[in-house]
Amino acid sequence: MLIEVTCLNIDSASFRQLKEECGKDSDRLKQKIRQIVADRGKMHNPVTGSGGMLIGTVTRKGPAFPDPSVQPGDRVATLVSLSLTPLFLEEIGEVDMAVGQVKVRGKAILFASGPFARLPDDIPETLSLAVLDVCGAPAQTARYAQTGHQVAVLGAGGKSGMLSLYQARRQVGEQGKVIALESNQKACEELRALGLADEVIPVDARNPVQVMEQVEQATAGRLADLTINCVNVRDTELSAIMATREGGTVYFFSTAVQFTAAALGAEGVGKDVHMMIGNGFAQGHADLALETLRECPPLKELFQSRYARGESGVPS
Amino acid sequence: MLIEVTCLNIDSASFRQLKEECGKDSDRLKQKIRQIVADRGKMHNPVTGSGGMLIGTVTRKGPAFPDPSVQPGDRVATLVSLSLTPLFLEEIGEVDMAVGQVKVRGKAILFASGPFARLPDDIPETLSLAVLDVCGAPAQTARYAQTGHQVAVLGAGGKSGMLSLYQARRQVGEQGKVIALESNQKACEELRALGLADEVIPVDARNPVQVMEQVEQATAGRLADLTINCVNVRDTELSAIMATREGGTVYFFSTAVQFTAAALGAEGVGKDVHMMIGNGFAQGHADLALETLRECPPLKELFQSRYARGESGVPS
Repeated sequence: MLIEVTCLNIDSASFRQLKEECGKDSDRLKQKIRQIVADRGKMHNPVTGSGGMLIGTVTRKGPAFPDPSVQPGDRVATLVSLSLTPLFLEEIGEVDMAVGQVKVRGKAILFASGPFARLPDDIPETLSLAVLDVCGAPAQTARYAQTGHQVAVLGAGGKSGMLSLYQARRQVGEQGKVIALESNQKACEELRALGLADEVIPVDARNPVQVMEQVEQATAGRLADLTINCVNVRDTELSAIMATREGGTVYFFSTAVQFTAAALGAEGVGKDVHMMIGNGFAQGHADLALETLRECPPLKELFQSRYARGESGVPS
Repeated sequence: MLIEVTCLNIDSASFRQLKEECGKDSDRLKQKIRQIVADRGKMHNPVTGSGGMLIGTVTRKGPAFPDPSVQPGDRVATLVSLSLTPLFLEEIGEVDMAVGQVKVRGKAILFASGPFARLPDDIPETLSLAVLDVCGAPAQTARYAQTGHQVAVLGAGGKSGMLSLYQARRQVGEQGKVIALESNQKACEELRALGLADEVIPVDARNPVQVMEQVEQATAGRLADLTINCVNVRDTELSAIMATREGGTVYFFSTAVQFTAAALGAEGVGKDVHMMIGNGFAQGHADLALETLRECPPLKELFQSRYARGESGVPS
């Protein structure tokens, strides 16, 4: 399927790395994006290995494309990582430095096996894009969080964190508890105002001992049954492991996670926990994330103000 | 706990990388090990991020060390990765280039939280070391493989692969099936002779389409309920994912695995599978691995011939 691309949503770990490398200069960042796509034929961050996703208009569909419901002219968001999506950029427009969205004009190919979502009419496009980029996390949280669980979400103040909080709160019920951990003070205040978590704890996720102590306190010494790691910086693996009770589950969603740090970290502290690699795909994940915005107007409003300020999809 | 170290067992991914970097020259390899330990204070491979483990004699125990059963004079193997174990090397002796074991004289510290095993009297030390280094994999396999499952083991011909085959075969019962995938021809023959797998398939684990087709064929089109990835080279994540049925589980044991390749790979092909990070620690994992050698004499014999040729623990 050939797509006329209008906007890229660079994933959080990648965009953070690019911003740092370019000293927060948007022109240098554009140049860097141009160079990565020219070199690799896709927006595949060579440092983080991650991508993001895109929105655009379907212009052509191969005769063997398996989904009959999508047609040329439809607005779609790809749910395959940009790190795997052939991309050609004709023009790079405005970069939203706070959000990681880049207005572009270009072309992309979606393979027949690649998941995508048609953009809904009732949600602004850039808002859909922002939410769909992380829709794997809340879908997995909804699966793993059970009635009565105490769930800790690290990096709770970002997109995937808040969507995961919502699903966790819904699953654990009155007997359960949802604990939001977040380093940014303003994000903590926003989380408290949203009321999705039973407790909001300001803490740096790179400090395993502090994280463990805080979660221990919030769970009456039991530690978390399920810990969701949504932090977009490195070196948070051990914090997630140590926040989790023996036999509990750690679900790593962020692409900043290092496999060996998790595998050898758990071994190193002798912690017998289940550790999951966050699969960005789950059946029904896109609908679940979009439905969350409809169900929870305060969350939609916050996301709208943070992630969807520019509404035009075309570079100015 | 202070340990007088006699032998290092470098993990497979790390040793392979070091061997390649040193052009299989054992003197250069010794020099490289000396340099890594001098630079980092531990045998922490800077490329793979992984370590391995060690054996030695306990020489001192801090007063607050929690395990009263271990005493100075005991021979122990550490079950914490060498990437997390403070190490000082006085001398580097013989390097077994085929096995990844290095005779040394040195000192290491085991923290109170670090798992270890006392070496049994009925199994040669270097054989215990070889098996204990990978004992997380068979323990996790025993948990995840269920009666009737079709289980695929990638990289089945190595230590962790064979131990995992044994546990898988025991769990799945007569209705289940265990499929061994291995690229090395000689290892395939050894696997056939051992009889631990119902089918042995020679295939390169870096070829996702071939792996998928072979597993499809071996499972009457169903694909694997559980795939265990024990391959010590990179770029095998997608093969494991594509060998697994929708809703099945992929268990990544090798430290050569890249988190983003797995997370974004599954997303990229729209495969809804559970992906586990191989925790090197599990309750009872050391005993389970050593017991396997006692229960399965042909496996013990093969391991003895492959991994425990030099029996002295002291550098010559």
